[in-house]
Amino acid sequence: MGYEIERKFLVGGDFKSHAHFHYVMKQGYLSLSGTSVVRVRIKGEKGYITVKSKAGENGITRREWEYEIPLRDAEEMLLLCDEGVIEKTRYLVTVGRHTFEVDEFEGDNKGLLIAELELESEDEPYEKPDWLGGEVTGDVRYYNSYLSIHPYREWAEQ
Amino acid sequence: MGYEIERKFLVGGDFKSHAHFHYVMKQGYLSLSGTSVVRVRIKGEKGYITVKSKAGENGITRREWEYEIPLRDAEEMLLLCDEGVIEKTRYLVTVGRHTFEVDEFEGDNKGLLIAELELESEDEPYEKPDWLGGEVTGDVRYYNSYLSIHPYREWAEQ
Repeated sequence: MGYEIERKFLVGGDFKSHAHFHYVMKQGYLSLSGTSVVRVRIKGEKGYITVKSKAGENGITRREWEYEIPLRDAEEMLLLCDEGVIEKTRYLVTVGRHTFEVDEFEGDNKGLLIAELELESEDEPYEKPDWLGGEVTGDVRYYNSYLSIHPYREWAEQ
Repeated sequence: MGYEIERKFLVGGDFKSHAHFHYVMKQGYLSLSGTSVVRVRIKGEKGYITVKSKAGENGITRREWEYEIPLRDAEEMLLLCDEGVIEKTRYLVTVGRHTFEVDEFEGDNKGLLIAELELESEDEPYEKPDWLGGEVTGDVRYYNSYLSIHPYREWAEQ
């Protein structure tokens, strides 16, 4: 599949009124080893299995291989996921020539909003809308794989 | 994909002269968790990613989902596999109305021969050719996932 170059941000304002599309997602992890992650995801009515390598030092670039699989297979495999299954709604918000994916988490991660921006290169410039909060790229706490083990609800308790 | 019902045996005689086909395989594991295994395999010129659930109590039946993927993806993902990559030649030997898959291991597992028989049900009868050795179904030492961590070469040293 190639590389994934991605920046992540917190969200601090009204993004929903700018969204042109949204869909519900569910995902879990079959594997969270030191070198790779194996994710099962349901996105709308479609299923996917994805392998991601560990991120490089700056946390921006990872290898990623994603394959569409039957929805039913994905539903069954989610039952095998060791840790919590993440549920969220993804909003697509176009700003300039980029589209931010803003995830509104549900369940044990309710209250958390994360915006992701996929780029062609690590130093590609992009517009920052006023609802965009601080950058958290490379902060492992905001990885979905981390959230499946340490949900946002537990953070306040620490 | 459904279920995999499989019996495994050691091999104690000449099976090669009865084989009608063989191909080289390479496989590694992205995940060996308590509930599932994620395997990357190259079989001849094709790549596959496979998810298997943990076996039931008798070790015969497991859930299995397998997807063909580009050969190059499989080659790249094998580099991410934490443990040893298994190399073997698989021989297909038809006996009566069944086909045994006999794996001749190479590298760190050289010297090991395992025959596998896929069945429609756990109590399905099958013919036993004279080269077939003792049954090792459910013996985790003969799982390829176990062999990737504890290769056959190390067994004699224990």
